Amino acid sequence: MKNLWGGIEAGGTHFVCAVGSSPENIEDQISFKTTIPDETLETVINFFRPYRDIKSIGIASFGPVDLNKDSLTYGTITTTPKKYWRGTNILKIIRSSLNVPANIDTDVNAALLAEHKWGNARNITDAVYITVGTGIGGGIILNNNLIHGLNHPEMGHMKIPKSNDDNFKGICEYHDDCLEGLASGVAIEKRLSENKNDDDSKIWELESQYLGIAIANLTLTVSPKRIILGGGVLNHKGLIENIRIKTLQSLNNYVQLDEITNNIDTYILTPYLKDNTGVLGAILLAQKER
Amino acid sequence: MKNLWGGIEAGGTHFVCAVGSSPENIEDQISFKTTIPDETLETVINFFRPYRDIKSIGIASFGPVDLNKDSLTYGTITTTPKKYWRGTNILKIIRSSLNVPANIDTDVNAALLAEHKWGNARNITDAVYITVGTGIGGGIILNNNLIHGLNHPEMGHMKIPKSNDDNFKGICEYHDDCLEGLASGVAIEKRLSENKNDDDSKIWELESQYLGIAIANLTLTVSPKRIILGGGVLNHKGLIENIRIKTLQSLNNYVQLDEITNNIDTYILTPYLKDNTGVLGAILLAQKER
Repeated sequence: MKNLWGGIEAGGTHFVCAVGSSPENIEDQISFKTTIPDETLETVINFFRPYRDIKSIGIASFGPVDLNKDSLTYGTITTTPKKYWRGTNILKIIRSSLNVPANIDTDVNAALLAEHKWGNARNITDAVYITVGTGIGGGIILNNNLIHGLNHPEMGHMKIPKSNDDNFKGICEYHDDCLEGLASGVAIEKRLSENKNDDDSKIWELESQYLGIAIANLTLTVSPKRIILGGGVLNHKGLIENIRIKTLQSLNNYVQLDEITNNIDTYILTPYLKDNTGVLGAILLAQKER
Repeated sequence: MKNLWGGIEAGGTHFVCAVGSSPENIEDQISFKTTIPDETLETVINFFRPYRDIKSIGIASFGPVDLNKDSLTYGTITTTPKKYWRGTNILKIIRSSLNVPANIDTDVNAALLAEHKWGNARNITDAVYITVGTGIGGGIILNNNLIHGLNHPEMGHMKIPKSNDDNFKGICEYHDDCLEGLASGVAIEKRLSENKNDDDSKIWELESQYLGIAIANLTLTVSPKRIILGGGVLNHKGLIENIRIKTLQSLNNYVQLDEITNNIDTYILTPYLKDNTGVLGAILLAQKER
């Protein structure tokens, strides 16, 4: 009998479920749109039900999630802008419905685990993963360990200087001028839909600038050796190249480290595992004792 | 024979040197103004020369410092605004002049080590130390380990949103709108000297706001369990209380963790070891194998 684990990438727009053990061994996989919790989790449960021999399931969830094992609400999605999902104890539902051990962490922590094991952060002791999708989130590995601290990072909500010529009101309902509010996929969509002229280049220039500032802030705060930048927004042509330039501009030669100033192309990379980063991270969570 | 170590707190305005082993056992200590490297380091060397039995010396230096042991410039102060000190290999000078093993880290990393061992971060697995003095710097302990990553944190240079009614041009020569540029001791002094009216309250309100935003950003980025806020600027009456309020305002209930929202008075604390935090941290560096 093969060793198989289940992975759930519970994303803000899509869920991905897989059964397998590694990038080379995925037995089955599905992807579907995130709707309301009842409906979405039913699809998840129906997918895993036939796999009676999986050892455990890892859940890589959008956040914020309560990750404090001593908390009464451990495994619950908390202050998400997705109102239907607030208070959903996704861990408890999966455990009880499938009667299988399960483990939960944030989608970005899981993605970073996968890149650290099999992808572009392999053999990198200190790395940051940032996703720019519906929202913006990130995870950090330092000294080869994922950090959690009090709960888990929520770096998408860091505040950054807004450009003087940017009149857009951020979309975050908690903060007017946080990174997610100004530069997430939802913010970009709103900016594009509100744009009166044909030229979207200013919007993408601001996007690069804000992400460059955020990456510079992360560089200055946790001093990583590599930054992996994932999420759907990064598919925009030329964006990562411009973010690299803006990161260096924001640092403005204060940090004089060869790994950054002369190697920005390898300092900031996209995920090696591409669209499978999240669900492979979920499988790693399943394999991990926490 | 007693076990004794040497500690050097190499600060931007003052140097502190001590011989001892712990807060309860300091045999000798001096403090003097930082001038040019030759003069300052001569005073340091003359202080330690009689102590032939110290096991090693720890140097807690203002930054940035090259902490990469494989680097040719390991132990050198690099892009500091203190031009006279740029390129000074303080570690090499101490080692060779006193013919004693020596170890170097940033002043803030050392201060955090001391608070983690003997002070307000004792038994706290994940803590951040920030000093607001001449400059602004910080250190991070996660999972009980000091983080270094590529080199060391330089969180004082993170960019934060500048208030619309703040016309002050930051004092950082690298960044117009970084925390150090807007809110360091040097910035405060310049703001106060430029102030035309008698009321300084707006300056201190901005100071609280900027430090509150920075602490909120750190909370969101590394998810610490405690933040220790030191440095001379914190002696201003009422400042820390207002910073606590501004931190919560900046987070705006996005982070709903009891340890922060209902316990901000213990989430943000000043150093227990007070003015001796740095030099005690230097003694810990001396005791540490790196």
